[in-house]
Amino acid sequence: MADQHPEWKTQQPFKAVLEDDLKTLASFGERGIIELVMATHANITTEEFESVVKQWLISTKHPRFNKPYNQLVYQPMLELLEYLRSKDFKTFIVSGGGIEFMRPWVEEVYGIPRDQVVGSSIKTEFTIVDGKPVIMRLPELDFIDDKAGKPVGINRFIGRKPVFASGNSDGDLQMLQWTASGDGLRFMLYLHHTDGEREWAYDRESHIGRLDKGLDEANEKGWTVIDMKEDWKLIYPFELEQ
Amino acid sequence: MADQHPEWKTQQPFKAVLEDDLKTLASFGERGIIELVMATHANITTEEFESVVKQWLISTKHPRFNKPYNQLVYQPMLELLEYLRSKDFKTFIVSGGGIEFMRPWVEEVYGIPRDQVVGSSIKTEFTIVDGKPVIMRLPELDFIDDKAGKPVGINRFIGRKPVFASGNSDGDLQMLQWTASGDGLRFMLYLHHTDGEREWAYDRESHIGRLDKGLDEANEKGWTVIDMKEDWKLIYPFELEQ
Repeated sequence: MADQHPEWKTQQPFKAVLEDDLKTLASFGERGIIELVMATHANITTEEFESVVKQWLISTKHPRFNKPYNQLVYQPMLELLEYLRSKDFKTFIVSGGGIEFMRPWVEEVYGIPRDQVVGSSIKTEFTIVDGKPVIMRLPELDFIDDKAGKPVGINRFIGRKPVFASGNSDGDLQMLQWTASGDGLRFMLYLHHTDGEREWAYDRESHIGRLDKGLDEANEKGWTVIDMKEDWKLIYPFELEQ
Repeated sequence: MADQHPEWKTQQPFKAVLEDDLKTLASFGERGIIELVMATHANITTEEFESVVKQWLISTKHPRFNKPYNQLVYQPMLELLEYLRSKDFKTFIVSGGGIEFMRPWVEEVYGIPRDQVVGSSIKTEFTIVDGKPVIMRLPELDFIDDKAGKPVGINRFIGRKPVFASGNSDGDLQMLQWTASGDGLRFMLYLHHTDGEREWAYDRESHIGRLDKGLDEANEKGWTVIDMKEDWKLIYPFELEQ
């Protein structure tokens, strides 16, 4: 979108993004992220937004792996989802990511249909433009599906307490607490990113995806913690071809 | 709840409800309804609310039919849902009713699972009370799933444009317009309540469930309209036993 916004070359937080300056970007905090989302994800229809996401997926590669982002998913996670569904579990995604950012591609990748995706959202509005009904994305936050928002989103969209939930950060802790609070057998699972060579290693000090309180509570309550480096033979599906 | 609120005997809109005075109740308009919902549906946990709904269903009968409300559903609608699912359609409820009011009973009655229900909602909050995680229902409206809210709710919860939608009032018109706007074959269906003997007859002048603009648009665009009196051999499932 930068072509249509020459002012972003000098205006923050856009300047930081265009210059790949993550340190400066981080200095704007949550407000900076929200400004970015409003500018880049709103004032278009839901159909136009879906086209932008699909176009991004086929035109952009991750700089480290030189792969499209939808290939950078975890093979063990795909196998677990498949296993659960083969045992008649209904599987959902509950992510801090934007719900309309995920829906165009997660069904193909994870086998999870669009209506089983819970995520963050901006407000939308139904309106008729030139005789054609559209849903416009508005520059106003609707819901942040993170931390205490995750059980709220699960309750709102799924309407049932999970019997199994898995996450990888403190943003998932309330979801796991909510899962653990039900009757009968429950499975709470944390993924600990410990593999700096094949993926990344981070936990208590990380600014993004911090896993600190969650790790303490998992240890205290005996929840299962995956040590990525030790426990995962493969990480990405493309390793199967190598 | 009136036992715990003696002041409702003199305080509107509660007085009108307790006296079964629908005319006075209607005079308070949407604000009156919202006040009622706030007072009766909030400040309890989602689990407590579910118990209230289930208790109401087993303890209350419709005055005209002397049947619990969950038996006053339409047999032709049940058969249509069953037929659609037998052809691999995924079926959803999209109602102006409260989403947490519907979920405790619709799966058993309609065969539609809890996560395939879209409805109106109040805000909720995840919190830990005496060490136990709960979701509290807050006295603040979140979303009204009616009129232009229906396509918004469909987009938010289902994330896909319907190929088939059915309704019975002007509150469903935007949902049907949204359905009609997709590519390929589409089915837009209105139920017209024309049977004052077996059910009710109302349309353009009704204060509740008005069907006026919708009827015009259905006629103009050739959408299918069910004439309840002429087209339905049975209305309620309990007629099958008679």
